[in-house]
Order: sequence, then C-alpha cells, then structure tokens
Amino acid sequence: MGILLKGGKIVTAVDTYYADIRLVGEKIVSIGKDLEKVGDEIISASGCYIFPGGIDTHTHFDAHIGSITTADNFESGTKAAIVGGTTTIIDHATQNKGESLKEALRKQHKKSHGVCYCDYGFHMGITDWNDEISNEMEDMIKEGVTSFKMYMAYKGNLQVDDGVIYKALKKGKEINALLCFHCENGDLIEELISDAKSNGNNSLYYHAKVRPVLVESEAITRLLTIAEIVDTQVYIVHLSSKEGLLNILDAKKRGVKVYVETCPQYLLLDDSYYGEKESESFEGAKYVISPPLRKIYDQDALWTGICSGEITTIGSDHCSFNYEGQKDIGIKDFTKIPNGAPGVEDRMGLIYTYGVLGGRISINEMVAITSTNAAKTFGIFPQKGTIAVGSDADIVVWDPNFSSYISAQKQTQNVDYSPFEGFRKQGRVLHEFLRGNKVIINAELIEKEPFGKYLFRK
Amino acid sequence: MGILLKGGKIVTAVDTYYADIRLVGEKIVSIGKDLEKVGDEIISASGCYIFPGGIDTHTHFDAHIGSITTADNFESGTKAAIVGGTTTIIDHATQNKGESLKEALRKQHKKSHGVCYCDYGFHMGITDWNDEISNEMEDMIKEGVTSFKMYMAYKGNLQVDDGVIYKALKKGKEINALLCFHCENGDLIEELISDAKSNGNNSLYYHAKVRPVLVESEAITRLLTIAEIVDTQVYIVHLSSKEGLLNILDAKKRGVKVYVETCPQYLLLDDSYYGEKESESFEGAKYVISPPLRKIYDQDALWTGICSGEITTIGSDHCSFNYEGQKDIGIKDFTKIPNGAPGVEDRMGLIYTYGVLGGRISINEMVAITSTNAAKTFGIFPQKGTIAVGSDADIVVWDPNFSSYISAQKQTQNVDYSPFEGFRKQGRVLHEFLRGNKVIINAELIEKEPFGKYLFRK
Amino acid sequence: MGILLKGGKIVTAVDTYYADIRLVGEKIVSIGKDLEKVGDEIISASGCYIFPGGIDTHTHFDAHIGSITTADNFESGTKAAIVGGTTTIIDHATQNKGESLKEALRKQHKKSHGVCYCDYGFHMGITDWNDEISNEMEDMIKEGVTSFKMYMAYKGNLQVDDGVIYKALKKGKEINALLCFHCENGDLIEELISDAKSNGNNSLYYHAKVRPVLVESEAITRLLTIAEIVDTQVYIVHLSSKEGLLNILDAKKRGVKVYVETCPQYLLLDDSYYGEKESESFEGAKYVISPPLRKIYDQDALWTGICSGEITTIGSDHCSFNYEGQKDIGIKDFTKIPNGAPGVEDRMGLIYTYGVLGGRISINEMVAITSTNAAKTFGIFPQKGTIAVGSDADIVVWDPNFSSYISAQKQTQNVDYSPFEGFRKQGRVLHEFLRGNKVIINAELIEKEPFGKYLFRK
Amino acid sequence: MGILLKGGKIVTAVDTYYADIRLVGEKIVSIGKDLEKVGDEIISASGCYIFPGGIDTHTHFDAHIGSITTADNFESGTKAAIVGGTTTIIDHATQNKGESLKEALRKQHKKSHGVCYCDYGFHMGITDWNDEISNEMEDMIKEGVTSFKMYMAYKGNLQVDDGVIYKALKKGKEINALLCFHCENGDLIEELISDAKSNGNNSLYYHAKVRPVLVESEAITRLLTIAEIVDTQVYIVHLSSKEGLLNILDAKKRGVKVYVETCPQYLLLDDSYYGEKESESFEGAKYVISPPLRKIYDQDALWTGICSGEITTIGSDHCSFNYEGQKDIGIKDFTKIPNGAPGVEDRMGLIYTYGVLGGRISINEMVAITSTNAAKTFGIFPQKGTIAVGSDADIVVWDPNFSSYISAQKQTQNVDYSPFEGFRKQGRVLHEFLRGNKVIINAELIEKEPFGKYLFRK
Repeated sequence: MGILLKGGKIVTAVDTYYADIRLVGEKIVSIGKDLEKVGDEIISASGCYIFPGGIDTHTHFDAHIGSITTADNFESGTKAAIVGGTTTIIDHATQNKGESLKEALRKQHKKSHGVCYCDYGFHMGITDWNDEISNEMEDMIKEGVTSFKMYMAYKGNLQVDDGVIYKALKKGKEINALLCFHCENGDLIEELISDAKSNGNNSLYYHAKVRPVLVESEAITRLLTIAEIVDTQVYIVHLSSKEGLLNILDAKKRGVKVYVETCPQYLLLDDSYYGEKESESFEGAKYVISPPLRKIYDQDALWTGICSGEITTIGSDHCSFNYEGQKDIGIKDFTKIPNGAPGVEDRMGLIYTYGVLGGRISINEMVAITSTNAAKTFGIFPQKGTIAVGSDADIVVWDPNFSSYISAQKQTQNVDYSPFEGFRKQGRVLHEFLRGNKVIINAELIEKEPFGKYLFRK
Repeated sequence: MGILLKGGKIVTAVDTYYADIRLVGEKIVSIGKDLEKVGDEIISASGCYIFPGGIDTHTHFDAHIGSITTADNFESGTKAAIVGGTTTIIDHATQNKGESLKEALRKQHKKSHGVCYCDYGFHMGITDWNDEISNEMEDMIKEGVTSFKMYMAYKGNLQVDDGVIYKALKKGKEINALLCFHCENGDLIEELISDAKSNGNNSLYYHAKVRPVLVESEAITRLLTIAEIVDTQVYIVHLSSKEGLLNILDAKKRGVKVYVETCPQYLLLDDSYYGEKESESFEGAKYVISPPLRKIYDQDALWTGICSGEITTIGSDHCSFNYEGQKDIGIKDFTKIPNGAPGVEDRMGLIYTYGVLGGRISINEMVAITSTNAAKTFGIFPQKGTIAVGSDADIVVWDPNFSSYISAQKQTQNVDYSPFEGFRKQGRVLHEFLRGNKVIINAELIEKEPFGKYLFRK
Repeated sequence: MGILLKGGKIVTAVDTYYADIRLVGEKIVSIGKDLEKVGDEIISASGCYIFPGGIDTHTHFDAHIGSITTADNFESGTKAAIVGGTTTIIDHATQNKGESLKEALRKQHKKSHGVCYCDYGFHMGITDWNDEISNEMEDMIKEGVTSFKMYMAYKGNLQVDDGVIYKALKKGKEINALLCFHCENGDLIEELISDAKSNGNNSLYYHAKVRPVLVESEAITRLLTIAEIVDTQVYIVHLSSKEGLLNILDAKKRGVKVYVETCPQYLLLDDSYYGEKESESFEGAKYVISPPLRKIYDQDALWTGICSGEITTIGSDHCSFNYEGQKDIGIKDFTKIPNGAPGVEDRMGLIYTYGVLGGRISINEMVAITSTNAAKTFGIFPQKGTIAVGSDADIVVWDPNFSSYISAQKQTQNVDYSPFEGFRKQGRVLHEFLRGNKVIINAELIEKEPFGKYLFRK
Repeated sequence: MGILLKGGKIVTAVDTYYADIRLVGEKIVSIGKDLEKVGDEIISASGCYIFPGGIDTHTHFDAHIGSITTADNFESGTKAAIVGGTTTIIDHATQNKGESLKEALRKQHKKSHGVCYCDYGFHMGITDWNDEISNEMEDMIKEGVTSFKMYMAYKGNLQVDDGVIYKALKKGKEINALLCFHCENGDLIEELISDAKSNGNNSLYYHAKVRPVLVESEAITRLLTIAEIVDTQVYIVHLSSKEGLLNILDAKKRGVKVYVETCPQYLLLDDSYYGEKESESFEGAKYVISPPLRKIYDQDALWTGICSGEITTIGSDHCSFNYEGQKDIGIKDFTKIPNGAPGVEDRMGLIYTYGVLGGRISINEMVAITSTNAAKTFGIFPQKGTIAVGSDADIVVWDPNFSSYISAQKQTQNVDYSPFEGFRKQGRVLHEFLRGNKVIINAELIEKEPFGKYLFRK
C-alpha cells in the first residue's frame, strides 16, 4: 500500500531517534518502533540517517547576466539538487527594468515548467519601483510568491536606492511578505572598480579588492536601520563576513529582527583562491562571486554565527558559468567575468562533512540550517522541512559510510568545474523520496521524467 | 496493551501536526495518522495540544536559608509541578562549607527519595573549594549529577571568588560538566546593604536598590571573561536584566559560548511590586527575590532574547516562603526577609498565556524553552524533552479552551501566596502522563502515590 | 605705541592666569606680569576674562534657499558676530548645480567683500561632481579655501551619493583638504515626508518626525565607513543626537579619525519646542532646522561628548529667516518652512553661561571649543584661536559680572526672533579687538566701517 | 635681575610660537617678542624648542618588593629625571598592611627629603581598609597628597577587593580625591601562575602568559562599573592593551568619566622581547613588568588612544632592578623575578622621537601628555605643566638637532640595563630650569646639591 522505511535513524531539527516511517501517497503517515508491514514495500534504511529533503534557498538557474546564460538550466540544476539530497529549491524570478512582476513570473514559470526534478518556488527580484509594482507585490502573494529580493549592489542595473527599500519594506510589512537583500554598497563598488581600472588593475585578483568587507558591512547596517524605521523584519542573503555578522548582532541588540543566510563557499573557501597579485593564472575566476570569498577569520565567525543561531539558512547561491567559454570572457578585464559559481549539488554533503563531522555543528543543526529553517522562513512548513506525520514525504536516506571526493568530472550539474574540487564528501544519498516517490534508490537516480512541482508558498 | 492518545495536535520544539500517539510501557512507540487500536486504552486529546512534559531547570525544595526552611518540600513541590504540567524538575543539592559533595548529595537524596510526584535530578551547588571537592566533581558525574552551581553573590556564605570559578571551570571542562552561575557581585551588594542600613533604609523597598542591574551585568561580564580564558561554556541562571543580556551578546561577539536561563517573574513582573519608597505596606516582601524584579524595559529585552535564541531555558527558581511567619521576619530589616518565591506550578501556564497567546513567542518556542532545551542542556535528551518515538512518554495534553486566574487559594504548592495572584491562565492540563503512567486525567490528579524517579543524567 | 591691556585673566584652551598683554599693530607682542607702559594706550581688563576671539565654524549669511534669502547678510551677520564676541566666521560658498567652484567663490566674495565686521573664510559646498570640479578643488586651496562641504540630505538638490563622497574624500586626501558633511539620509527623509503628506500630516510638528535620529545615525556610520575605505579624516557638522555620537565612537574604536561639531541649539533646546501634535500654534516653526531638535537625553550626551573630547567645535549654523514673512510660508505645509535659525550672536554667551557656569565644561574647554579647535581644524592657527605672542590680537575682554536675558528686541542680528528668547546670558563683551583694532569698547560697538578681512586658509 | 631666554620656540599643550621668556625668581614673568634685557642674564634658546618641564606621573624610587629594594633611590631617580627633561615626579608612598597612612607618608618623606633633584609629590597606596584609613584619607589631603592608588592585582599582598574599592571611591568622591588603579584581576593571575607552575612552566616566557590581556580588560570593566555605581571618576594607571582601551570606550559611552595613563614601554615594546617558549636566554627578564608587554596591535591602539584624547598621561612606571643580582633571582622561577623596569630618564626623549618625529602625535600633544595633563589631573596646575606667565619656571630647552642612541652605559639612572637599549633618541636637553634655577646648561647637569621640593598638591 505504501512504503515502509525501516531501521533508519531519523534526524529532525530537534530529534534524533531510531524508528520506522510509513509513507502513503505523498505523505508521511506514521512513525514508530517496529511498524508492521501492511501491504507496504519495505525499504531498508539500516545504518543510515533519515533527513528531511534539503531546501536550497538560493539558486539562479537559466539566468541571464547580460548576454550570458548560466550553464545550468532548471533541468540540469534541479537534477543536481536531487542528486545532492535537495528536494526543494527556491529560485529567482527577476524583473527586468520596465517589466511587470507578472511578466517576470510568467517567464520563469515558462523556463521551469515540466523540467524540474525537484519541487521549486520563486523569490521575485524587484529592480524597479512604482505604484504598479507595489500593487503587483500583492498579486505575487496570490501566485505563491511570498518573498522578494532586492539588490543594494549592481549600480545602474539591479540596484535600488534607500527610498525604494523603505517603500518596499513598508509594503512587505503590510502584505506580510519577506524581503531579502543582497547587501553590498553598489555606489562604492563602482568607484573602487573605476579606481582599479584607472590603475591598470584588470586581473581577477582585483575582484575581491573592489568589494571589500566594509561595502558589505555598511550595506547591512543601512538596511537594518531602514528596517528599524519601518519596524519590520528582513532576510539577508549570502552573508560572507565577520564584520557583517557583528553589525547584525548590533542591530539585534537594538531589537531589529533579521534572518540571515550564508553559503558553503563562505564557510569553506577563502580569498587565497584568487591567487597572488602578480599571478598570471586565471584559475581564480572560478571563485569570482559576489560578495567575494573572505578570510579564514570570517569563516570561523560564520560557523559561530550558525551555532549561536544568528545564521539560520544555507543557500548555495548556485549560479554556474563554465570556466571555458564563459568565465574566460573576463580574462583581460575582471569586471567582465560573469559572477557566480555552482553549488546546489554539494551543499548538503559539504555541510554534513565539514559541519557535522568537522565538529562545528550538531546533526540536528545541520537539518535546521539546510532544510527546516528554510521551510519555516519561506512559508512551506510543515509541508516541507521536517520528518513528521502529515508532512510531504521528502526524505533523504543518508549513508554515512560512503566516502568520496568532489570532482567536476563526476558531477551532475552542467558546468565544467567545481569550486570544491577535491573536497572530501563523507556520506551519500542512498535513497531519496520526493513527495513519497522514489527518486534515488541505491544511489541511482531513478527519476526519469522530472515531476517537480511549483510550490505555492504562504 | 498500551494507551492510544487520539486526535491531539502534537507540538515539539520544531513541529506542529495532528497525529495519534501510542504509549507502551514508559515510552512513546508510534506516532501516526489514525493509528489503529490494538488492544489499547483510547484517550481523546481532541481539541488539545500535546506537549512534552515541562522541565523546570531551577527549583529549591526543602531548602534551608539560615534557620528557615522553604515552605515547599519535595512532596508538595513536585506535586505542584505535575499539576502545572511539569514532569521533570532539577533541584539543587548544595554543599555546606566544609561538607563533601557526596554528603550533600546523600542528604538531598534522603529528602527526595520516594516522595516526588515528578522525575527529578540535581545540580550540585559548590560553595567551598579544595582538591577533594575537585575530585568529587568526577564522582558526582558517576552519580548522575552533571551540572554544578556556583554563586558570585552571598558573600561569606555561598559566594566563591574568581580563582575558584576559574578552577571549577577548568575541572568542568575536563570532565565535560556544565557549570551554572548566579551572577551578582556579592562584594558590592554587601557594601550597598551596609550603606542602606547606615542610612536607616531598612524597608523592603531597598532590597532592589542594593542589587542594582550593574551588579548583575558586571558579574556576567566577569564570568564570561573567565570562561573565555578557560575556553569553555557556562550557564547563567535567572537572568533578569537587559544590560546583562547585552553583556552576554558582547561576549558572544567575541566567541564565548553561554547558555542563558530566565524566569517567568523577570518576564512578567516589574519593580513597581516593591511599592513606593515611603510605603508602609509589606506586600512587596512577596517579591523579595535575587536578582530583584527590574523594569518593563528589561522584560521586553528578555522576551526579545528568547525570540532571538539568546535565552534558551525558563526555570521557575521556585524557593517558597510563607508571607506570614517567614517573609515577615524581615519586616523591620529587609536583609532578614528570606529570598525567594514560588513558581513551579504556574511556569507553563504563564509562558503559554503571556508568551504564546501574547504573541511574543510561537508555540514551538514555548516547548523549546520550557522543555526541549532544558533536556538537551542538562543531559536528559531524548529521554525527556520531546515527543518522539522512543522517548519517555512524559506528555501533557493541554486544553487551550479553559480559562482561569491564578490564586493562592486554589494552588497545590504549599505556600500562602502567589506572586502571580490574579494573573490570567489560559488553558490547563487535561491529561498528563509520566513515563506512560496517567498522573492527571480529566484535570484531576490521579497519581496517589508519588512515583517520580531520580534522573541519572549524562 | 601699542595697546596695553592690564589686569585681566587670560584664558586659553590650556592656561588661565593673570597677566598684561601688549598689542602692537595687528599682533600680540608680549604677555607679562606688570608690563611697563612704553607709550601705549592702557585699557583696563580688571575683573575680566581675556578670551581669544570666538570662531564660528558654521554660518550661512546672504544664502538663498530656493527663492528665499536669509534674513541676515554678511553685514548684519558679522556685526552680530562681533557683538557676541566672535571675531572670525567661516561661511559657505555653495556651488549651484552645473556651476564651477570658482564661480561660486567669486559670488560669495562679491557678497561679502567690504561689508564684514569680522574676519571671514569660506567652506566650499560641492553639490555636483565631475573631473573639472575635482580639479577645481585644488584651485580652491590656492584661493584659501581648504575645507569642503557635502550634503547627504536634500535629495535632488544638494545631496550627493556615496560614490561622489568617495571620490571627493580621495581628492581631499590627496590635496590635504578637510571635507565636512551634513549627515542625514536624504532618501529616507524624502520617503518619510511623502508618508507624512499622504497622511495629511502637514503641520510643523512633523518636521522632526520625518527626520528621526536614525536617519542621522545611519548617515554618520555610512560616511565613516567610506572614510575608513579611503583612509582619511572627515568633519561632521551639527551633530544633534546621542545615537549619532555613539556611532562616531564605534568608528573611532575601529581607528577612524573624525572631527565633530555641534551647535548651541542641540545642547540647549529640545523637541518639545515643536509643540504637541494637535497644537495649532506655529511658534515651533522658529525651531525648524535640520537636523531637528532632539531630546534632553541627547543634550546630555552631547555635553558629555564635549567633555570627553569627542566633539571639538561649536558652530552656530546661523541661517536666519524671519518668523513673519519667511517661516510662515510653510504654515500649511511644513516642508515649505525655510530651514534654519539665527545663532551667531549668542553662541559665546550661551556656552559661557550654560556650559561654564552650568558646570558642564571648564573655562579652558569653552575657549577650546568656541575658538582654538576651530582655528586648528580649519587652518588658521596660530594666527587665530589663541592668546599667544605673535598671534593676531583678536581679543575679547569678557566682563563676567554683567547679567542679561536674550531677547530678539535687543539683538543685532537682523531677524525678528531668537530661538533662545528669554535665556539667561551671564557676562558680556566689555572690550573687543580685531587684529589689534578696537571694535568694542565699554560694551559699545565702535567699529563704524567694517574692516573684516577674508582669511586665506592653509 | 632675571634670566632672559631668547630665540626659542615655545611649545605648550596648545600653542607653538617664537618668543622670549623672562624668568625672575622661581617664576615666568613675561613672554614676548624681542623682550628687552633689563639687567638679565641672557641665555640663547635659538633653534630650540622650549617645553614645560616633564611630569612623570608614575615612579617607584627606593621601593621594596619583598626583601628586594629598587636599584634607584630618590637621589639617583630624580637625577635621571632631570637629565631626561623631567622636573616633577609623583612617586608612591605605599601603606604596609596594618600601617597607618601617616606612617607610610612619614617614611616616604624620610627617604626623599633633601635628596631629590627634581620636585616631587606622592600618591598614597592603600592596601588595607578600615574606618581609620578612611579618615586618614582626609588627613592626607591636608598633607598635600590628593591621589590614592589601589591594586586589583597582587593577591594576598597589595590587592583590595571590590567592596574596598567601592568604599574608597565613595570616600574619594566625598573629599574630592582622585583614585588610581592598577587593573589586573589578581585572583585569576594567581590561578594562571599556579597552572603554569604545576605544568613545570617556570621560565620568564610565562610571565606574559599568566597575565593575559583579558585579566586587564576584565579588571577595567569591573572598576568602571563600580565607579559608575558610585558616580565618580577614576584614573587607570599603565594601560597596556587595546582590549582594555575598548572597554574604557564602552564605559565612556555609558557616561563614566575616566583618566587613562600609559607608558613608553607599552607604546614601543612588544612581547617578542620575552623570547621564544623554548629559549634559554634570560634577557627577557629585563622586560618582566606588570602588566606585561603586549602586541604591536596594542601599541597601535594606544597611540590612537592618545590622538583621540582617551589616554591623557604618560608615566614611566620606573621601578628599576638590576639584571644582575636582582632580576636573576628568578632565573629558575619567573614568579621570583622582581617586576619593574627603569624609564624615568628616557620618557621625554622617546615620546619626542617616536611620537612626534614618528608622526603619531603633534608636538603640542607631546607637551600635553608628558606634562600639562598630568599637572591638571594631579592638582599642580598652573604651577607646573605649562609655559605661562606666573607659572613655575620649570623649563626644558630642547635641542632637536642632537642625535644619540639609548645605552645603559651612558645613563644616569642607577641600574645595569635599559629596556630601550639601542633605541634612537633625537634631541636632547640643552638647558633646563627648575623653578627658575639652572639645573642643566649646555647639556651638563650643574645642579650639584639637590634642591627638589615636595609638592603640596590640591
């Protein structure tokens, strides 16, 4: 009748215990000691952890940066998600200037419909503001888009000013939507780029130099001040620095409510990947992302921020470009290197290996930051994000005994490198279920036709 | 065969969902949709929440303050706990100066053995220090006592100095024990008391004046500095002030790990209860506790601290003295008023009513701070503190539709007043189970013979 | 041959002592005990303090706000300065958009030339930015203008963005010029004004509401971050709030160097002057200045900031408009009320009365903040700002025994009200010298033809 | 009749200007351009700076640490002071436990009377507390001792507890005395020493390890909290660390008033002088002082603190012990190494060379921190600490063109090493006057009989 998952160790954001799980249809229907088989298919999870499917809060599939399109589209991107143990992603529909939000959403639906291997939702990126856009925010809620994204960077393109942030936050508060922010001071970055260029500093090494920590930490403080004036909460995407985190703590001391996301790359990589100033290697272009990689010092602070509950979600910020043919457009001019890197496939494995096994977080904290908190923050809990009776049977059976190394050659995501090449990955997805359906069995992807559904969020 | 609890809404620190629960023996054995009755007794939880039994991290039953004994002993105290929805308490065995820890523990076992209505454990209060005591800490671990309490106040009596704190923290780190601290600067309190007396300020009004916020916030900063030097974590009991919380946040910014407890009285009462300076009323003596009640401003900060995850446990600091015959010993001299107030009975109801219904915290946060976090922090998870397969069936079926007011006349705890007299209490314990046994059914205490067990903690 | 000032008590930023002073030509030539008369005119300063002439760092004479011209021009404004004990003012030449700095300076010279009763210099207000303006900054240095002013408020008018601030600070660092900033977030003020208007909140009461402390404190933090990136120092004009001061201290903790100015109005007046929300009185328009008046709490913090050396200069921000005929343009719409108030005349008297006699600062600190520090910061020391051999004989003989009350009826400045109406003023200018010339003798202005000179600063 | 000092450049805490100075008797009587000779002896100061004589706020001459007596007594110490340009020192009379303050003062007078080459005063060190001591504080004021010193370190010896600090601060506030504090947590140091010893860590390398920055920063925060409760000001001696300075700034943000002193060794030396862990050299013992030397990072912060006005005085903490025969008592046990180092002789030269010429402070700031501020803080201004008419003619004529290197071989202080061996010293004392008397002429000490006087402070 259903599927009976036997012998696994269930891990939620709070609990860890041995029990069997029965899935019927798309849902978890019971959890118990030695559940009896009543016409179910039995699948063994013996020796394995049972996690709620991962939720990646931050992807950019089939996205266009100028004339360049990301290497991964929704098909390859969501397939990589499933392979990595992520059963839900939240991608971005981003309004072009002058475009309506509806149109932006329509286009994103068109790109994603019918090709997704995992379930998916959208944040709506707002880059333009007027009364119509403001009204459209309400329409978006009705379309299941309850979170909006704004950029304090990318001047002349995505960047919005403080007045627009204020208005959007007011509107968001009114309609109970969550606003997400890319926090970097775009005006200053423009100037720093201009300085670098006028000094003939065109190599990728300068990517991190023109986006110093202070442009992030300043933007964070400014955003949180506006949120304080409006008296509302905000979500900060891809926090990269200790200084930024300290500014968040200062705002919290004043009573500002803020959700914070970071990414595996900010937890595990540092700016030495950009190489030396005089290096002629272009390898560092693989790490040209914004905000840029920081110091070991910042990594430590971010792990601490997770432990102390300041950082509650981990997105991949997957935005992949091929090293050959895409990244290399900027070989003579770092500002032309498309910003972004892949990450959706290895997010869970890295957090398990370096977070849990590395002794930095507990296994319950791993579930919280890779799945549960995301579901709660973005309005899909308890449908997603937990192992509980009545929830979607999005389940990862994680075999902790398998060892491997990350390698672009073996990856599912459709890009020619991995920023985590050579990193250890302990454990793997042995079985995986999406809404009760088997998608991976015995470490083989068996989902032949993508059946991921759009998530209408609340 | 077992008990089948049907139709309730299960609430854990993370999840909220409708499901049935089967209890067999002392444990939860399955949770599911429409579980079938297989020879079980069926009890309806329809329309009710199902919480894990409350865990009160901080009680003082049958305690002696000088020559005065608390109004509640283990029998009346644990009975009140059960009545209020608390199935576990952690009380204090406190070493007298010169006494061994073993002896202190033996005496506490003697007082509590066979008379407790709920399960119980002990913190060991250390007031004296030498190599033997240090060694005894390890013995205590073997006795199931994994947390130790020290006082930075009560000079000449319980107070230990910074050197002892350092040594105890080092030892605690070595044996993996948690040290808990009462943070007030006892030296300064002594002087402020002396000043008050020499100015003829003997009324209870001065109790709060001689223990200003700064003596708490200073002690916190000092403790956390010592913890930073030792590189270990600590637990701060009964935090009462915003300034104290801000100092904790500053220490966290430096990477210090600290657990924080507060109490319902600091969340709900303020120093206006001490009356005016010139008042002749002695009513305020009911609120003579240490630290003293603070301002509304501090209450707000503490609620915010709960929401932001800085404060993770709520203890009652139950230490009851009768108003007549005990508190009134200090009618002419506030320093003679025995410090303490009752609280174990109403802790859960107050947090539910003023926290959850007051819109300050979610119902999951309530479970986290009244039960789950305590279990995790003090080494009794997952046996206690959650609703999960395999855990002890310590279960509260909470009927949210019942309304009442707190009144000393109706209370179970054996003391002649309540500091929360007249406070609203929404909801009540409809049924309650301790290790699978029915202790309250239909709002009646049916546990006739106390069968609470000592908790051997890890 | 010269003038021998006998019997006074000389006060500098450091010293206080009795001595005679001989002035020859424009300079102080000797200071000593019982200096002998060698053909000098003797003027008694017995019973009086001898201060260096005041330096007002912040005036707007003959300024145009839209189509409205300030009530005071250079003639009346500088005459009021002299009457109040101020011998030097630094006014603002402000570039109109599209205009060259040279042209702006030329116009300001034209307005001021030959009509000033005291010596004067100019800050150059930059509102527009391009390579020519950047180059012109160097030209300005050659013209004796070594400080530049920028506005983070007044969107669409004076406001510059973060990129321009960055560029200007870099240029300023290169040419060793000091940049001064009006710190309020103009984007947010725009939105708050728009909100107020759309709610029908048009009365002057809302002036302070649309410019809350947070728009100042945010702008300060942002400015100081940009200064940190550029690694240069800045000058913050008219600091009004405690929160702003705390943010300055935080930046100082990171090593940012910043000079801070406040004004008598922020030290002595509070936002109760704006009246109640429903008040129909328009009196509060007299206090419509930007930033607006704050709380008593902020006043205390600013006085403390002076004592602790964080705030080093006091400007008047004199920018006067008549209550009748000018302020009342905004009677139906607070945004039309011209922003500004008079202050140059009473600055010294208020700081003496409320600062020194009020016990908040020492008499040496008064000299430091009203004169010496300004001279040092703005490149006119030791010519101005001290009582020392070789310095300009800009001397105020202050009779501390005279008492009066401030009243618009008696004032020299050409405006129909005083924001300090009814405030006590203890002491008065008995005699005053500008570059050795008698300008006030026996409390009478005897300077008939204005002979103030333009100060070529370094 | 007097002495006419011609052609020098006078430097005060505020002013820098060329003028002649006439000294008559013990005082400065006039300052002016081209003062005429009226029977005076003319001494040329051409090409030289004229500073007020230095004031060293912190010396320990003829002091006993256990059974060891400092290498310098009042005779050699004050002679070294004069040689280095310091005309006033404030030494310490320190009460032995059980001794009266009067007795302690009497003994110090006995040691110093008639043998001092410069003027001198005393701080009174209080190590014991009772009502008599409290009363004696008033007597001390009448004896010209207006500042008191307490130690938060040296447990069981000099250390006082928080209650005593509180009482002493209250008394000090009442009688308008300034209390000075050595801020290190002595309880913790005791434990860290004990840990080191039990690990066999006996070499001088561990001196700094057992006195980490946190024991200083904690003590500072605690002291300033007590000062906040008492609502009074305090003076912190020999600040050594950035963390300590940041804590001072935090207290200032809350409105606490505090004076801060540092020393040349904390500005110029770092903990690398203690050598490597495994080093067998005992050279580092020369730097065994408390607090210990810190990091370059701390030096930078302290210089910044001087610039921003947080640190206002520079004492030498001169407490000299010979390397051979005294320091080497601790060759096998670092806790036996007498704590202290010489410094009085080179304080002025080091601050001039590394502060002024190093571009860290202005020459006026040098005068402020080496002389003027000390005079103001400790009640001897304007008698001492400035170049002004009526002040004592304590004058240093500093020839900036002379270059030398510091070497123990050439020094006047009576100790066998210098911690600044090999440091450059630019400039030297060409002439020096103590109360109008020539003490150094043409770089030769001509004061044959010491005539330094005890300073009765107010």
